[in-house]
Amino acid sequence: MKFTGLSAFPLTPLTATGIDERAFESIIGRLASAGVDSIGALGSTGSYAYLDRSERARAASLAVQCAGGVPVIVGVGALGTREVLRNVEDAQSAGADAVLLAPMTYQPLTEDEVFGLYEDVSANLSVPLVVYDNPGTTRVNFSDELHGRIAQLKAVASIKIPPVSANPAEAAERVAALRALVPGHVTIGVSGDGAAANGLLAGCDAWYSVMAGILPEHCLAITRAATSGDVEKARSLSMAMEPLWAQMARYGSFRVASAVAEDLGLVKPGNLPMPVRSLDADGRLAVRSALNEIGITTLA
Amino acid sequence: MKFTGLSAFPLTPLTATGIDERAFESIIGRLASAGVDSIGALGSTGSYAYLDRSERARAASLAVQCAGGVPVIVGVGALGTREVLRNVEDAQSAGADAVLLAPMTYQPLTEDEVFGLYEDVSANLSVPLVVYDNPGTTRVNFSDELHGRIAQLKAVASIKIPPVSANPAEAAERVAALRALVPGHVTIGVSGDGAAANGLLAGCDAWYSVMAGILPEHCLAITRAATSGDVEKARSLSMAMEPLWAQMARYGSFRVASAVAEDLGLVKPGNLPMPVRSLDADGRLAVRSALNEIGITTLA
Repeated sequence: MKFTGLSAFPLTPLTATGIDERAFESIIGRLASAGVDSIGALGSTGSYAYLDRSERARAASLAVQCAGGVPVIVGVGALGTREVLRNVEDAQSAGADAVLLAPMTYQPLTEDEVFGLYEDVSANLSVPLVVYDNPGTTRVNFSDELHGRIAQLKAVASIKIPPVSANPAEAAERVAALRALVPGHVTIGVSGDGAAANGLLAGCDAWYSVMAGILPEHCLAITRAATSGDVEKARSLSMAMEPLWAQMARYGSFRVASAVAEDLGLVKPGNLPMPVRSLDADGRLAVRSALNEIGITTLA
Repeated sequence: MKFTGLSAFPLTPLTATGIDERAFESIIGRLASAGVDSIGALGSTGSYAYLDRSERARAASLAVQCAGGVPVIVGVGALGTREVLRNVEDAQSAGADAVLLAPMTYQPLTEDEVFGLYEDVSANLSVPLVVYDNPGTTRVNFSDELHGRIAQLKAVASIKIPPVSANPAEAAERVAALRALVPGHVTIGVSGDGAAANGLLAGCDAWYSVMAGILPEHCLAITRAATSGDVEKARSLSMAMEPLWAQMARYGSFRVASAVAEDLGLVKPGNLPMPVRSLDADGRLAVRSALNEIGITTLA
């Protein structure tokens, strides 16, 4: 698979007893129909950190089965290396095209420990690996040196980086600096949906997107404009989504994604893993207003 | 049980395949013989975050069996409320006298979500609960207001707080401020071994201690001096341990506890949960020097 273009990260909707499989299958099917470039199942948005091993194996299988041939990247992160390796085994058995690994932490890790984790996992992989740099959830701040070391590992195919600056020159400088440190075949993908157009225009190869898991067409339009060099169109399409990006910044992309999916009838209430809770009434209203403002019809 | 005095938090030594049960039993037995006031099994030092459900249930049972009647507090934290409730069930079945709960996070939690976790767990408990405020591992910063809300829950018996200031007046002010917010029956226990004498002298009821899991006599002497009001003796006994406290501050108490236990022959090499690694050669040497400096004979 190529680690370029739009990679959509779907929710894994939950019920009181486990995964809402019908809803999950339907979400994956929509992404395949929309023609996203890849699907990132069991990312942070996919609640991987809150599911047990068998639920994760099941979600990986369902994602591959419903993806209609679109490449599937499966999140394998866990606090312990031992559990990560078990998840790798399960993801590969499920037919994953690649795995995504964030260095989850409980005890804060040294750079050598983070590198050691990637080294151990890389040595046990038969599919490519996407490095997941997400300090907001892992509390690991990757130095450039650490990115450079990890990217030399043979399994590494791409890096999912945090949002880039809204300033185009700063964003381009950041992407260029990182690219200089990693082998040429390793792609760089931006996350943080509000920063994605900036990231792609600054030279990122991919957009690892939360909202593409729910609104794939909107995000594909931005991606195609940016990667075809239509700077004005990419910026204006992203600007049009600003009311939604603003709510994601305010409440966190995870809870907003859940609220949007609920407003579109894709998932049922109570789909997030406790202790995480759905947005309160004010938050729900703000998200619904943002959706209406950008021309998306909601159920309520 | 009373939530006062010295509570010792033992390591759960690991091997390549699971818990080193012989070593764990022997560590618990030493604490019981030393006469600590309680044992905190499966705390952060006990690697709870890296063990699976059956390993945690097994460690809880072994701790209760080997504690010789000393009350055992068992850590039940997990990222999801669902797993926490399963761990509660297992800890209670094992005969735990109390449970310890830190709000582990992957997605950052709001105060309402943290409160909701404690509320849900409290409603499902038949033993008392110790609130574990440990921002270094959970990245939850408890506000005073949140502490006050949680402490009203009927199961809450004690709060394990982060290190207090080295300045006695500041430490006393902090403890008094917290005490004013919580019901009278809720005790306050200090963690951060280097700050423990200060904490006890500032009015804390208990010391939730990492090093007491390995050197219980040393920590008991400090505790008894402090709680009997012998300020000078408590301070001088703690000062004598300063070389070790300094290494814990430098390398983190988890890795230093493992190194000390190894140097005393209590655990085998490779006892930490990967990706966490043992101290490197320089760190091991520094810890050994500190032990020798405070008059503790090591194997090497």
